[in-house]
Amino acid sequence: MIVVKVGGGLDVDYGALCDDIAQLHHAGQPVVLVHGGSEETNRVATALGTPPRFVTTASGHVSRYTDQAAMDVFMMMYAGKINKRIVELLQQRGINAFGCSGLDGRILTAQRKAQLRIVENGKQLILRDDRTGTIEAVNQQVLRTLMHAGLTPVIAPIACSHTGEALNVDGDRTAAQIAQALTADTLVLLSSVPGLLRNFPDTSTLIPQIARQDIDRYMEVAQGRMKKKVMGAAEALAGGVNRVIMADARIAQPIQMALAGHGTVIT
Amino acid sequence: MIVVKVGGGLDVDYGALCDDIAQLHHAGQPVVLVHGGSEETNRVATALGTPPRFVTTASGHVSRYTDQAAMDVFMMMYAGKINKRIVELLQQRGINAFGCSGLDGRILTAQRKAQLRIVENGKQLILRDDRTGTIEAVNQQVLRTLMHAGLTPVIAPIACSHTGEALNVDGDRTAAQIAQALTADTLVLLSSVPGLLRNFPDTSTLIPQIARQDIDRYMEVAQGRMKKKVMGAAEALAGGVNRVIMADARIAQPIQMALAGHGTVIT
Repeated sequence: MIVVKVGGGLDVDYGALCDDIAQLHHAGQPVVLVHGGSEETNRVATALGTPPRFVTTASGHVSRYTDQAAMDVFMMMYAGKINKRIVELLQQRGINAFGCSGLDGRILTAQRKAQLRIVENGKQLILRDDRTGTIEAVNQQVLRTLMHAGLTPVIAPIACSHTGEALNVDGDRTAAQIAQALTADTLVLLSSVPGLLRNFPDTSTLIPQIARQDIDRYMEVAQGRMKKKVMGAAEALAGGVNRVIMADARIAQPIQMALAGHGTVIT
Repeated sequence: MIVVKVGGGLDVDYGALCDDIAQLHHAGQPVVLVHGGSEETNRVATALGTPPRFVTTASGHVSRYTDQAAMDVFMMMYAGKINKRIVELLQQRGINAFGCSGLDGRILTAQRKAQLRIVENGKQLILRDDRTGTIEAVNQQVLRTLMHAGLTPVIAPIACSHTGEALNVDGDRTAAQIAQALTADTLVLLSSVPGLLRNFPDTSTLIPQIARQDIDRYMEVAQGRMKKKVMGAAEALAGGVNRVIMADARIAQPIQMALAGHGTVIT
């Protein structure tokens, strides 16, 4: 079984992705899909008068600041339009997809970050109404129940806090946690780059292979959003997943191309 | 088992509704919830520059015209924000809710209306890109699978066409179809009125009881949206549901009040 995360770039070819999932399904290789949606979400949030706010945490990560108005838009886009349009594309290809978020059935339980320590104009500030979290548990029983019923899970990265609040969680790390919980053979992280690049955005510097024991060294190579992918990859491998592949979401047969070794393969 | 439809008025008290579902759940009375969302959807559609368009069909029904841009917003609001905020309220009350739409797992299969014959300024027009449908089948197996796993389904009224397209379906009739498929004891239709009124909006003309054999006569009493509720009630009763109650969504314990006879009880 393969867990695939598809990023939220506007140039992702969802039709090609769903063709690929259908082909793999018919070849006896089931896929669990986790999706992003950040670019479309940013557009709609701006149109609705609540533009996204990205903050730099004290530890140096760039993170989406999710107050309740931002969570409304996050739910609209991730759990709503993006999730259901993917489910529709799969249904049109004969795959009985089932879209949900990690809030549903408490598939994903996360610890809410009680406060977010950020740096703004060189000063440290604390934000207290942020709704983001770090996943602590995956309810693999619910996912297995869906799969045993012949359904293909399509999961939006929203988790449930210990007190039942909806939390924004990182999609790559969500996919990594799900891959571990389901003891997936392979985790494929698809996005709008061909893999991990030594010198972003120079695609000729693609790193084709990484040995799992070396992965921590690549945290410094990874820029911006790619850091979360490298963290996810490290978590998944530590948790028993055989192989993680970072590859291109913008091409035909993106999953099969990744499985054939196109991208950055970590084993 | 009770199937509850809650309407999409801005004055609906979702917190009270979820308190009530939690109380019923702990009393051994499981609820399956179908929700609306029209008023919030209209607001967001207008803010996004695609205001809702309501058309009058040749048969005299007022219907939402759902082109693909409208379906995007419908998915955002119904399957996204409204569905997940209800799931969150239930999770906060210790109920392991599971939100989805009828597109997911093909819970609801509908026949797409190939063309919509409307009347505009006295002239008949035909609209061909409308994405609405009439439910033909409920996949009760998926719903039972969720319930057997201890989950409380929360369902947005979006169905799957025979070719996999997402379709907007009427929420009241969706609830009626689900109640039949699950052989629910009672169908409760909650909205922003206390029940069926002989002279809308005069609440002193509430009709407290209707005998099932008389229901067709009440199609003429029902105005606007209430017609769909009466149609849903008739379908549910014909399909084996014991009792349908139309009642007020804006009060404390709305379901328990309905079950106690407050509203219009059809048996």
